[in-house]
Amino acid sequence: MALIVQKYGGSSVADAEKIRNVAHRVVETANAGHGVVVVVSAMGKTTDGLIRLAHEVTPTPPARELDMLLATGEQVSIALLAMAIDALGHKARSFTGEQAGIRTDAAHTRARIVGIDGDKVRRALDEGLIAIVAGFQGVTDEDDITTLGRGGSDLTGVALAAALHADVCEIYTDVDGVYTADPNLVPDARKLARISYDEMLEMASLGAKVLQARSVEFAKKYGVPVHVRSTFKADPGTLVTREDSRMEAVVVTGIAHDRSQAKVTIRGVPDRPGIAAQVFGAVADHGIVVDMIVQNVSRETLSDISFTVPRADRPKVVATLEEVARRTRAEDVTFDDRIAKVSIIGVGMRSHSGVAARMFRALSEERINIQMISTSEIAVSCVIEDKYAELAVRALHEAFELGKENAATA
Amino acid sequence: MALIVQKYGGSSVADAEKIRNVAHRVVETANAGHGVVVVVSAMGKTTDGLIRLAHEVTPTPPARELDMLLATGEQVSIALLAMAIDALGHKARSFTGEQAGIRTDAAHTRARIVGIDGDKVRRALDEGLIAIVAGFQGVTDEDDITTLGRGGSDLTGVALAAALHADVCEIYTDVDGVYTADPNLVPDARKLARISYDEMLEMASLGAKVLQARSVEFAKKYGVPVHVRSTFKADPGTLVTREDSRMEAVVVTGIAHDRSQAKVTIRGVPDRPGIAAQVFGAVADHGIVVDMIVQNVSRETLSDISFTVPRADRPKVVATLEEVARRTRAEDVTFDDRIAKVSIIGVGMRSHSGVAARMFRALSEERINIQMISTSEIAVSCVIEDKYAELAVRALHEAFELGKENAATA
Repeated sequence: MALIVQKYGGSSVADAEKIRNVAHRVVETANAGHGVVVVVSAMGKTTDGLIRLAHEVTPTPPARELDMLLATGEQVSIALLAMAIDALGHKARSFTGEQAGIRTDAAHTRARIVGIDGDKVRRALDEGLIAIVAGFQGVTDEDDITTLGRGGSDLTGVALAAALHADVCEIYTDVDGVYTADPNLVPDARKLARISYDEMLEMASLGAKVLQARSVEFAKKYGVPVHVRSTFKADPGTLVTREDSRMEAVVVTGIAHDRSQAKVTIRGVPDRPGIAAQVFGAVADHGIVVDMIVQNVSRETLSDISFTVPRADRPKVVATLEEVARRTRAEDVTFDDRIAKVSIIGVGMRSHSGVAARMFRALSEERINIQMISTSEIAVSCVIEDKYAELAVRALHEAFELGKENAATA
Repeated sequence: MALIVQKYGGSSVADAEKIRNVAHRVVETANAGHGVVVVVSAMGKTTDGLIRLAHEVTPTPPARELDMLLATGEQVSIALLAMAIDALGHKARSFTGEQAGIRTDAAHTRARIVGIDGDKVRRALDEGLIAIVAGFQGVTDEDDITTLGRGGSDLTGVALAAALHADVCEIYTDVDGVYTADPNLVPDARKLARISYDEMLEMASLGAKVLQARSVEFAKKYGVPVHVRSTFKADPGTLVTREDSRMEAVVVTGIAHDRSQAKVTIRGVPDRPGIAAQVFGAVADHGIVVDMIVQNVSRETLSDISFTVPRADRPKVVATLEEVARRTRAEDVTFDDRIAKVSIIGVGMRSHSGVAARMFRALSEERINIQMISTSEIAVSCVIEDKYAELAVRALHEAFELGKENAATA
């Protein structure tokens, strides 16, 4: 008998019928003899609706009260799912984040889990109950309700699995696993049976939307196997797990792409110490996360600095940089919203050389110009013109033979 | 500086604009130098919507999960009201029933308050905050969320006022006070400036909808002055308070009527000990509340028993009684859905005689036949044909001169 944590997202519990479907799936697992803890998100677009309601009341709702409001979304889901399971003749008990002992810091709307007191959930399991836990929420030491930020329900699932020493955390979603590339772009993209935590982390940070980087980090830290699978199909999905030797044999595991960024360039900056600090200090003051950075000395004592930011933040960044440019007597500030970042990811890169070169060659063969490059131990990313994004992903998928079962082994 | 508990019902917080209006009213009270605790219900028809949602999932939702679900309604209201108050520049903090320390028994969907640990709310007040508390909900010793049943938010308000030793509990509603009779029926009905707990209790039990009997009982027990007033007007409403000598001078304070009941009669029951027990035991087994009861020996050893029940329960009651009739060889069971109960209420009755006679005379002058009569120390009720309800209320209002300021004094 295993202990299984199952997490269902908002689209899986969007209406009464879908909730009954999830109940069936949960009861099947319990009837197979397993202990089951279920984590659910708010129904469908509930969270967005609640945020809209808050903004009807005031444009600047205090964070504590926003959390008080948003937490109701998951509370509705857990109650309804417990009812649906009860209607199938199995006993269930729902738990708010507070009742499930999910303790967080007091950073409202983006709280961090500081500990889980799983006693109550464990007791429910011991009594033969299915435990239904509200995702995305927790409670501070002061008994204030907090939320964990977007994608927080995945984190609740993984953290509970860690605290309860569950055998696996199953993340049910509307895709059926992690693919070698986005199947919408690459017809022969292949579902991966396994992927390492580090690869999944890179995939998530580099644009793959299936799992949030935060949850993967948590899973890695506590060694929780995460099984990403479809709510609507019975097939196994992708197991995110510790690296093993088989994985190292594969050079590139997957291709990620991200079309949500913009590139900003400040040109002709005097090339002297402290300039970069001024540029990025000003951006950081606005709480904007900078991704790739490239600096090159263009002419004698002048350098150009380019970096990427979320496209939504671009206008604010440009305004800030124009200020910096005036102060530092830089030439000008330019930007480009029409960029895409394509990345190759694989733990095998550590032990194989020439991987980046193979990537650049594949892109150049399609006459795609590379504007920026960045690398990590297990990933290489290139910024290209956005209109080439699909072509680039397909070319790289082909170049590393990811469509084949034992692809791109050395 | 006073400590004031204000309770706003669902219609007062039905949308963002109404919530902002309530916020204004609350902040005004705080700016006048008072400590303010606000109790709110769920927005508009939210509770009904949640119940509907539960029934889409299953016709028989477990009570614990129904409470988990329903409690979200008030949680949404407190968060939004706290936001609206914050937007007006005053600090507020919202509290779920659990956070406000409202402890109840485990009778889900109709829990009783067993105690209030008001420390957190008191601390918030000491910090100069306005405390916003979710009505209608509490928590068991096991940390399970409970609800107090319909009208439970009034009870939350009164109970908090008692626990915090507040100076008054203001109940804001869509009527502006307690009237000598329903102003929709009686054009010269007069708003009462004061009414005693006992009179209010009789009014509530006999059909006046403005306050729930349970809350009035609680207020009486702990001596909490309750001020019933309008959300939409600034005028004072009606103060429900301890009896004083002025009140005794008035024979009849108000007229109540109730058109929601049905009369059931079991005829020709053998007149022997234990029969009434059989009849009402059977009805009680279905959890149905019987109101007025009249028994008379009609012919020698046979008696007729009539009583009133909520109209919705009438079919079940009749079916049950037909069973009893067969067992006891009674003649038959009849019923009448078209009845109304009209009542006169006043603490002055205790010290005045002839009050009931005056009531019967007023009805007979309008040729209204009285089907059943019941009396308490401070009320007389008559069951009449429903079509005469308005006429009866107006006739009684006139007979006891309730339209005049110092009406019906002896």
